[in-house]
Amino acid sequence: MDRSNPRTTIGVFDSGMGGLTVLKSLLELVPNANYLYFGDTARLPYGSKSAETVAKYALGATDFLEKQGANLLVIACNTATALAFVQIAQAAHVPVVGVVEPGAEHAASASKKRKVVVIGTEATVNSHAYRKALEARGVQAREKACPLFVPLVEEGWAEHSVTEQVARIYLDEAFSDGFESADVLVLGCTHYPLIKSVLDRMTMPGVEIVDSAESTAQVVAEKLRTGKSAPETDNRTPAVGAPTLKFFATDSVEKFRKLGAKFLGRPIDFVQHVDLKE
Amino acid sequence: MDRSNPRTTIGVFDSGMGGLTVLKSLLELVPNANYLYFGDTARLPYGSKSAETVAKYALGATDFLEKQGANLLVIACNTATALAFVQIAQAAHVPVVGVVEPGAEHAASASKKRKVVVIGTEATVNSHAYRKALEARGVQAREKACPLFVPLVEEGWAEHSVTEQVARIYLDEAFSDGFESADVLVLGCTHYPLIKSVLDRMTMPGVEIVDSAESTAQVVAEKLRTGKSAPETDNRTPAVGAPTLKFFATDSVEKFRKLGAKFLGRPIDFVQHVDLKE
Repeated sequence: MDRSNPRTTIGVFDSGMGGLTVLKSLLELVPNANYLYFGDTARLPYGSKSAETVAKYALGATDFLEKQGANLLVIACNTATALAFVQIAQAAHVPVVGVVEPGAEHAASASKKRKVVVIGTEATVNSHAYRKALEARGVQAREKACPLFVPLVEEGWAEHSVTEQVARIYLDEAFSDGFESADVLVLGCTHYPLIKSVLDRMTMPGVEIVDSAESTAQVVAEKLRTGKSAPETDNRTPAVGAPTLKFFATDSVEKFRKLGAKFLGRPIDFVQHVDLKE
Repeated sequence: MDRSNPRTTIGVFDSGMGGLTVLKSLLELVPNANYLYFGDTARLPYGSKSAETVAKYALGATDFLEKQGANLLVIACNTATALAFVQIAQAAHVPVVGVVEPGAEHAASASKKRKVVVIGTEATVNSHAYRKALEARGVQAREKACPLFVPLVEEGWAEHSVTEQVARIYLDEAFSDGFESADVLVLGCTHYPLIKSVLDRMTMPGVEIVDSAESTAQVVAEKLRTGKSAPETDNRTPAVGAPTLKFFATDSVEKFRKLGAKFLGRPIDFVQHVDLKE
């Protein structure tokens, strides 16, 4: 780590490019930081894999980002957070922020009916991480796996009529059996912000959409503001300047550059290929 | 390898469970063999990954199956065949059969119009392996990536109206610009046999559907019959009895057991977990 640089170096980790929606929110709220983004694209998606496999991959990524100088880690992947947060936090030597707790906290404070629907990958839903986090806050949760949303986003069909139909089917099933009155929909997968407008059209008026990516960025900003994190940096002396960005991917860097720009909302100039041994 | 057993031991490799459609065809045509099926489920899907990554994974699988006693290898994965057949065949110490050449050969002999449409994953299409194999046989080929078909099959929506619409969109695009008269559709992905009836309804009358899985099983059967393969076995002495089956997977064995049965068309009793180091 470069000791002459007083800024926080935030390591952001995801199975692929979805976590770039978290980075996008972070850049808005915490522009004054160095960012390292690691996308484990050779082994994505995590959403259909087992807890053991996801934990093993996540620990490799955590170790890599720490070695690159991260002094705060953001697990910008709902599946990795849901399945391996405890293992990651225990293995890490720096503070770790996941996406589930911030999303659940935001949802709990937004829900007047105390009933929330959470959509995510199969693995995130099966872990019941959101349900546990919401029930701990006195809120009932219905979790619904939506495995077609990620490939629909990656096909570039975010605004397609097929995506609307799939969303209608998934949401009808989720907002049923006692959850017709749920008033919050949590986007429990970092790909879903790209179909937020479709989901908004397909939900009843009065249903608030909570984007875990935004909630997570808010928690990170607050942590840094109150000095609760990044102990090796001096947050009392505000540093100046634009953020620095470094991208790492385990599969094709060209594909990451192209598709990643969609998620980040800005061009990605350079991506470094990384070959992680298991 | 068990020298007391004169039967061929066929190692079948896929990124996941799709290759079980190839195994299903093999069991029909070559029941008298021992089968080892390896599904690299922890790292699936290969279809969106780069050639380097797929080749690295495929070589690990090849090595594993040889060590388990395979004396004939079937790469039951279009992406791995398309991207890494040459590397696999060079590294292997036993004969190797891929799915692309058998599929292309069958398609070329079936097409009167000498125009064929091939559907597959993004990686298979980008490799142009089918186009090259078909052009070498004097047949023009239009390749079309259909990245939503695999997740639709895995969602259990093989007969769903959404799948019909997606098929209509993909096929309209494929059978256009000079390929309106194509008379063969090649299923260049081992998941696609599960939506064969939808594809059949969505194509014009007179279009023959060629399933690479079936074509590959025919080539293997012919190879064994003519003694062109499996030099360490004695094929002149027909052995008797039902096939033996062993399944290996790198991710959840429970999921493999459940979902795999859909592809294989019969129950899967036991799957052994394997942890391949890269």
